[in-house]
Amino acid sequence: MLRPRFDASGLITCVTTDASNGDVLMVAHMNAEALQKTVASGEAWYFSRSRKALWRKGETSGHVQRVVEMRIDCDQDAVWLRVEQTGGAACHTGRRSCFYRAVNGGEGGIAALSFVAAERVFDPDAVYGKHGHSHD
Amino acid sequence: MLRPRFDASGLITCVTTDASNGDVLMVAHMNAEALQKTVASGEAWYFSRSRKALWRKGETSGHVQRVVEMRIDCDQDAVWLRVEQTGGAACHTGRRSCFYRAVNGGEGGIAALSFVAAERVFDPDAVYGKHGHSHD
Repeated sequence: MLRPRFDASGLITCVTTDASNGDVLMVAHMNAEALQKTVASGEAWYFSRSRKALWRKGETSGHVQRVVEMRIDCDQDAVWLRVEQTGGAACHTGRRSCFYRAVNGGEGGIAALSFVAAERVFDPDAVYGKHGHSHD
Repeated sequence: MLRPRFDASGLITCVTTDASNGDVLMVAHMNAEALQKTVASGEAWYFSRSRKALWRKGETSGHVQRVVEMRIDCDQDAVWLRVEQTGGAACHTGRRSCFYRAVNGGEGGIAALSFVAAERVFDPDAVYGKHGHSHD
């Protein structure tokens, strides 16, 4: 039986992966309503912590996420969505995945970042306007 | 440059996937020390919220996670680890992945769970003792 354990803010962590290749596209949050709407509609809904608002993924960009499978973890405090990402890009920066930078170990334990899979699928200024957009 | 954005509790969310097939194995948390030790050692370290302790994955079970790649997301508040899971099981229930149950939409929007990929790789009682173990 589904008994999601929402945190003190009423949220649960959601990991969304590309069903075609397993890549992690994004990590976001859902409140009870976002979870219910995702189950009912078969499209991903999240809760934006920065905007404090329910958020249908792709409502601005048109790049909606069709849910192929939803899973929940052992202690029911995290959800895994396997999706078909329409438009090809999940990240608000226009990239396919939010995880477009690798963390590399370096001298003296200082970590450096390098870009991987960082090509932009769309121009975020053109889609969201110059004020930008965050999906957090 | 790596500038992880830890939350008010000093933690960052970490998604860990199986590098061989992209399946999500677990979602856990890291504090600054766990992140540093993971980068430095090439093995996954987490911070247990329930035990309030730094935790080397596999320290009890021997099922350590060798890091193949670490990535960080656009706003640096989530980490993605691609790992080689030794021993074959990441979940404290003895299963390969913590996400062994699918959420299915049902009548009237009530979601039901079904088991998928739920075979146990090890017996948790034998590994952790009857008191059990949580990796949260």
